[in-house]
Amino acid sequence: MKVLVIHGPNLNLLGMRETDIYGIKSLEEINNAIRSLASELGIDVNILQFNSEGEIIDAIQKHTYDALIINPAAYTHTSIAIRDALLAVGKPSIEVHLSNIYRREEFRRRSFMADVAVGQLSGFGPDSYLLALRAVKNILSKE
Amino acid sequence: MKVLVIHGPNLNLLGMRETDIYGIKSLEEINNAIRSLASELGIDVNILQFNSEGEIIDAIQKHTYDALIINPAAYTHTSIAIRDALLAVGKPSIEVHLSNIYRREEFRRRSFMADVAVGQLSGFGPDSYLLALRAVKNILSKE
Amino acid sequence: MKVLVIHGPNLNLLGMRETDIYGIKSLEEINNAIRSLASELGIDVNILQFNSEGEIIDAIQKHTYDALIINPAAYTHTSIAIRDALLAVGKPSIEVHLSNIYRREEFRRRSFMADVAVGQLSGFGPDSYLLALRAVKNILSKE
Amino acid sequence: MKVLVIHGPNLNLLGMRETDIYGIKSLEEINNAIRSLASELGIDVNILQFNSEGEIIDAIQKHTYDALIINPAAYTHTSIAIRDALLAVGKPSIEVHLSNIYRREEFRRRSFMADVAVGQLSGFGPDSYLLALRAVKNILSKE
Amino acid sequence: MKVLVIHGPNLNLLGMRETDIYGIKSLEEINNAIRSLASELGIDVNILQFNSEGEIIDAIQKHTYDALIINPAAYTHTSIAIRDALLAVGKPSIEVHLSNIYRREEFRRRSFMADVAVGQLSGFGPDSYLLALRAVKNILSKE
Amino acid sequence: MKVLVIHGPNLNLLGMRETDIYGIKSLEEINNAIRSLASELGIDVNILQFNSEGEIIDAIQKHTYDALIINPAAYTHTSIAIRDALLAVGKPSIEVHLSNIYRREEFRRRSFMADVAVGQLSGFGPDSYLLALRAVKNILSKE
Amino acid sequence: MKVLVIHGPNLNLLGMRETDIYGIKSLEEINNAIRSLASELGIDVNILQFNSEGEIIDAIQKHTYDALIINPAAYTHTSIAIRDALLAVGKPSIEVHLSNIYRREEFRRRSFMADVAVGQLSGFGPDSYLLALRAVKNILSKE
Amino acid sequence: MKVLVIHGPNLNLLGMRETDIYGIKSLEEINNAIRSLASELGIDVNILQFNSEGEIIDAIQKHTYDALIINPAAYTHTSIAIRDALLAVGKPSIEVHLSNIYRREEFRRRSFMADVAVGQLSGFGPDSYLLALRAVKNILSKE
Amino acid sequence: MKVLVIHGPNLNLLGMRETDIYGIKSLEEINNAIRSLASELGIDVNILQFNSEGEIIDAIQKHTYDALIINPAAYTHTSIAIRDALLAVGKPSIEVHLSNIYRREEFRRRSFMADVAVGQLSGFGPDSYLLALRAVKNILSKE
Amino acid sequence: MKVLVIHGPNLNLLGMRETDIYGIKSLEEINNAIRSLASELGIDVNILQFNSEGEIIDAIQKHTYDALIINPAAYTHTSIAIRDALLAVGKPSIEVHLSNIYRREEFRRRSFMADVAVGQLSGFGPDSYLLALRAVKNILSKE
Amino acid sequence: MKVLVIHGPNLNLLGMRETDIYGIKSLEEINNAIRSLASELGIDVNILQFNSEGEIIDAIQKHTYDALIINPAAYTHTSIAIRDALLAVGKPSIEVHLSNIYRREEFRRRSFMADVAVGQLSGFGPDSYLLALRAVKNILSKE
Amino acid sequence: MKVLVIHGPNLNLLGMRETDIYGIKSLEEINNAIRSLASELGIDVNILQFNSEGEIIDAIQKHTYDALIINPAAYTHTSIAIRDALLAVGKPSIEVHLSNIYRREEFRRRSFMADVAVGQLSGFGPDSYLLALRAVKNILSKE
Repeated sequence: MKVLVIHGPNLNLLGMRETDIYGIKSLEEINNAIRSLASELGIDVNILQFNSEGEIIDAIQKHTYDALIINPAAYTHTSIAIRDALLAVGKPSIEVHLSNIYRREEFRRRSFMADVAVGQLSGFGPDSYLLALRAVKNILSKE
Repeated sequence: MKVLVIHGPNLNLLGMRETDIYGIKSLEEINNAIRSLASELGIDVNILQFNSEGEIIDAIQKHTYDALIINPAAYTHTSIAIRDALLAVGKPSIEVHLSNIYRREEFRRRSFMADVAVGQLSGFGPDSYLLALRAVKNILSKE
Repeated sequence: MKVLVIHGPNLNLLGMRETDIYGIKSLEEINNAIRSLASELGIDVNILQFNSEGEIIDAIQKHTYDALIINPAAYTHTSIAIRDALLAVGKPSIEVHLSNIYRREEFRRRSFMADVAVGQLSGFGPDSYLLALRAVKNILSKE
Repeated sequence: MKVLVIHGPNLNLLGMRETDIYGIKSLEEINNAIRSLASELGIDVNILQFNSEGEIIDAIQKHTYDALIINPAAYTHTSIAIRDALLAVGKPSIEVHLSNIYRREEFRRRSFMADVAVGQLSGFGPDSYLLALRAVKNILSKE
Repeated sequence: MKVLVIHGPNLNLLGMRETDIYGIKSLEEINNAIRSLASELGIDVNILQFNSEGEIIDAIQKHTYDALIINPAAYTHTSIAIRDALLAVGKPSIEVHLSNIYRREEFRRRSFMADVAVGQLSGFGPDSYLLALRAVKNILSKE
Repeated sequence: MKVLVIHGPNLNLLGMRETDIYGIKSLEEINNAIRSLASELGIDVNILQFNSEGEIIDAIQKHTYDALIINPAAYTHTSIAIRDALLAVGKPSIEVHLSNIYRREEFRRRSFMADVAVGQLSGFGPDSYLLALRAVKNILSKE
Repeated sequence: MKVLVIHGPNLNLLGMRETDIYGIKSLEEINNAIRSLASELGIDVNILQFNSEGEIIDAIQKHTYDALIINPAAYTHTSIAIRDALLAVGKPSIEVHLSNIYRREEFRRRSFMADVAVGQLSGFGPDSYLLALRAVKNILSKE
Repeated sequence: MKVLVIHGPNLNLLGMRETDIYGIKSLEEINNAIRSLASELGIDVNILQFNSEGEIIDAIQKHTYDALIINPAAYTHTSIAIRDALLAVGKPSIEVHLSNIYRREEFRRRSFMADVAVGQLSGFGPDSYLLALRAVKNILSKE
Repeated sequence: MKVLVIHGPNLNLLGMRETDIYGIKSLEEINNAIRSLASELGIDVNILQFNSEGEIIDAIQKHTYDALIINPAAYTHTSIAIRDALLAVGKPSIEVHLSNIYRREEFRRRSFMADVAVGQLSGFGPDSYLLALRAVKNILSKE
Repeated sequence: MKVLVIHGPNLNLLGMRETDIYGIKSLEEINNAIRSLASELGIDVNILQFNSEGEIIDAIQKHTYDALIINPAAYTHTSIAIRDALLAVGKPSIEVHLSNIYRREEFRRRSFMADVAVGQLSGFGPDSYLLALRAVKNILSKE
Repeated sequence: MKVLVIHGPNLNLLGMRETDIYGIKSLEEINNAIRSLASELGIDVNILQFNSEGEIIDAIQKHTYDALIINPAAYTHTSIAIRDALLAVGKPSIEVHLSNIYRREEFRRRSFMADVAVGQLSGFGPDSYLLALRAVKNILSKE
Repeated sequence: MKVLVIHGPNLNLLGMRETDIYGIKSLEEINNAIRSLASELGIDVNILQFNSEGEIIDAIQKHTYDALIINPAAYTHTSIAIRDALLAVGKPSIEVHLSNIYRREEFRRRSFMADVAVGQLSGFGPDSYLLALRAVKNILSKE
């Protein structure tokens, strides 16, 4: 059971600024928590972060995995190309957000991923990833 | 740690029709799964279902709980009154949907609860409730 | 052949005020005309009126019938929950309006029921119900 | 009691294609059913079909009748000129649709006739015309 | 001179939370102020609070009064059914808001009551009701 | 100096109904007034009326004239094809309306002709045509 | 306790025309009623009327007062400059309308003052000013 | 027969710049043509130009006239206050534009005067005023 | 292999005016090029031009052909009736435009044909038809 | 090299209130800084402030200058008349804002001046004027 | 005659999934067909595929070619930067789509390339490229 | 005092084409002018140009600077990811445009950077950068 986790643009700066929105944990701390739970759930997890839309598409296409957990960050609202990559690859994917995207600017309310993902989680901070991991476990177990 | 779970209108018919959207499990089966995980997590859970907007508001106001898990169903998109009840009571709440609301009619994309809840989960079937329960556990543990 | 007829909010006041829009017949007079034609067509008719959205949902769920004739009145334009009840129950339904809803306020032009009902009738006064009864007869006869 | 029935563009092809939307009856079969019920109700009926907007306007202007039953088909959504013809002639008219126009493309939701007609019927297949005939009978009987 | 005062959903929680928006007075304190001024003005006042849209409609229909003061709270923005009840009953009504609804979420700017009420008052806290009482006195005195 | 005058759909019924909007003069009376002033101004006038969009386009293409006065009636708001005919022929044209189109339905506010015509006149009753004739005289005199 | 009352454009014509909308009282009669109640409430009132947006801004800036009652009339819907004057001066202000602005043209529904004023009163005729005076009294008394 | 002619903002600069849009005639030349035709038609004409919205309102209110010809220029699209002045005074008015306002920026398509004026003329250059004068003559002759 | 080519309104004037948009070739020259390539490809081609929407619908219905190449010109943007004719007949069709419709007025961006045609070609001048002919050849060859 | 600087409505109150948005400097202090830099750059500067739209138009028309620096304040978003004055006079102009207009209310995002000015500067506080002065210097030097 | 062909994001996966939309041919098979026809037409073709918006811009800038055939895929609807690259380079370009973009999600209807390309082809599967190649040949032959 | 200057996509082609919009200076010439003024102002300037959104984000994150001058070019209107990078890094930034973005396509009016930057400059050609450099100097001097 292999899961690819993709962090979108600017998430490499987590914990440094805007901590009122995104929390104080660094991306490395979050990744450690993901790896720890993945290990507990028997999931083989591969975690990547990209600032470039094109590299996210490349990663979605080139890696081997059974399911995808993706926090597209700003690309959530602007990237039809990532949406198309999800459709083209056809693996179950889960859309994850640290912050509650509905409490922010109006333009963050639209997601180009939401209707092609299996489901979405938003607003739980780093727990969003951990809950997604549990969701993935269940989805893959049922197949 | 007391959690109130509210199921919105028509969820009492789960598992009977439209099973392609909502799955084959009955509400009672889902409730049993919720109770079982709640017990495991040491959460005291109270589960209610209402077809009436007014009764949901009454329930939000009158019960005693530390956090709320709510699947407002159709009222998600039309009820400012339930939103106001969540605001008035001021307990942490989680918005839950069985189906992926972004794959359905355009008018299901707007939620009056999303920006007043802590977070949302959508599209995981009955697991949406179970993941919400885990999220609640973490939220309350941190307070 | 059992048919449930539901009158929505404020229709209990028919014939008392706003007679230029809704006509001078009381709800009881209309119901008598419905019962009379139903009897003639061999239909077993059950007629109910509710001011509450939740009670309409309850009625749609709990009664036994082969088809539904519903005048959702104001809820036509605001209730996704009644729409969902119609979908959940899955019986053929007909949307009926006494007045021509297209001659009135702009917000009365949108119906949340129209695309889940078999068909709509609007503008024929009390005849709207009687024509709907004949339509129901044909729909059920063809099944 | 003379009634003019106008079928709009492409309705001459009924029963040949798109039978899932419009049913399997040909226009001639529908017309026979109309004529049969008209005869039963003591209505003198004149039935016409046109593909041209201008010819529909001409027909509305030139024929002699007490009421009009019109299925404007595609012109429902685009023809202010037919609307104006209905207004200019000032006879009671009924707007009729075979299919449920609310289940189709978004642009079929707007009718330029709806607020100038007495009422509308939509979604009952050929029965839409027959119910309209009964409605006309009542409207003219009351005058 | 009988006046019915209706408080909409969640107003029973006044003074407990969100005091920066709604003030620190409880509903009972406001009601006492209303009763006191009503007595001074020679008005027989009946004060009710409901969380349910249907119960508000019932109350508008069933009570006997010369004028209505209503704070529809969240239903201001969503309830065509309450609007229709006001129209059906035809008594002079005044729409009242404690807070300034134009300083809040965009969706609170639309009122379904505003154009069927005699007038509106918004933003004066509990004084909104007292000013409405004076307005009612004048309106009824002129009739 | 040859001028073509085109009356759009339903204008042949002028003076018969809706006299509060369009006045009591018949089209023939208006045409006589046009002919009379044209003669006075030394203009050779050709007056035509059509209910069909296609025939209006044919007329614009086939006749010989120095300028065009057109009352497109309902086609004002829906016909890009007549607009294109005006563009294709390239003669100076004037858009004329009997009634004040800004006092009527919202959809009558948009004109597909207005920006390709030299100018517009609206709201002067039959005088709209006579004023247009004087305008044409000046326009052609200046060329 | 000094209060400035500003009447916006065209209010100097009150009582002369459009009496069905604005009532039959002249501005002078209204001003007398305002002065009379102000005197009773111990308020020192200064009443001004302007047709010019710029003069209203000048008046807001130059006079000395504790609170402002303003009926911006047509400028309600178009003047950001008056809004900015209210913000720049920072005195409590009340927006007042004689007529119910929600029963009129769509463009009268937007107010540029509403969210910078303490509150609004609309639809009570001359009483709107008198109620505003009472509201001002309370607001200033609490400070 | 007294007619007031009002030129709106910036029209005092006519003939100096933007001659491709507004023509090469100065305002004085246009005024002379107006006075000349007015004299010929037996109309007593008073011509004014203002850059200020408030002064236009003052002029509409204070002068004595049987009809008004107004070119509101930029205020056409922004001034509800001038609209209200026209309504308050209640004299027949004609809206006039030198240029074809439909060939210009999108925001010039909306007129706040158009539905309160008797009629509009647009696009005929200085002739717009002269044609309006003839229209006024006819309107006043019929009263 | 029989192909029907339909030219929409005003295309009979090609090459006479607006040559900067549509080119200098006459319709006859274009038709000759179409016939020549059709002959080369072994296609039996029938070419028609109509100014009337109704005649285009008649032609779509009455002729015998395997595929349709249509340049609906102005009707592209306004005719649901032609769309419905294409749907009713169910033959593969190709939408063709001489000019690039995306470089022109905003209202030319919407096509009622685009989603019912197999494909569209726009902007290639007379070559649009020739490329469409090649496309048709391939489409029919694959069936 | 003569430059006219126009400050729009309410800018005379700078430094008194809302200092978090507009800063603590008074208009006189800003004007002194402008005069000082103008002197340094060899520019003859004339600085004016108006609350009235009409007076701004008058000033734009009547003064003699080579370029214009204008902070239209609230009129930025509402005045087509000032826009037209800029067009009519045809001098190079620069639009200046003290605050960042994109961080404020939605309606401050639209400028009627932006596309007729040479350029805009926004958000630099009093420096906005000084930078504009340097820009003007360069623009005029290049002519 | 050198032609650059650019395939946008995810087109490298052609033939693997979503074959109902995009067909069963792989990108390599399509490229071979392009090369084969190019050779036949005497065109020197260079074919590239990129997932990254930036790399597409680089390619448009850096390669040497007489014309460009581009299938921007998802970037069609989101990339103003690619549009600007086309404008900056100024070579004739053709926009190509395999699928009929008008049959898909609403957001695929907008193209940022359409009005800067010479023309568009959409819906012909791999033939879209081949037809574009023929179109390019003609365009370049005419220059 | 270190300042990073970022030029967005396609700006490397400056001076080659579209010189009527962007001017005739090459990017290198502009950079030399920036470096020259920076040196004069005592600013240590680092200038970069990127066609890729991801590389711009990387640059914003990785370089060390006190303030940022950015001309996001096409990404101004589409990139929430660059906006987020500016927010995440939290340095003062200035948005710069060579051309007046308000004179161009409608979609260039929206900036995702404008409300997170300190201020914007648009329309001054290469001077936009130089003025921004002066603005930066002042901003940093005040901290």
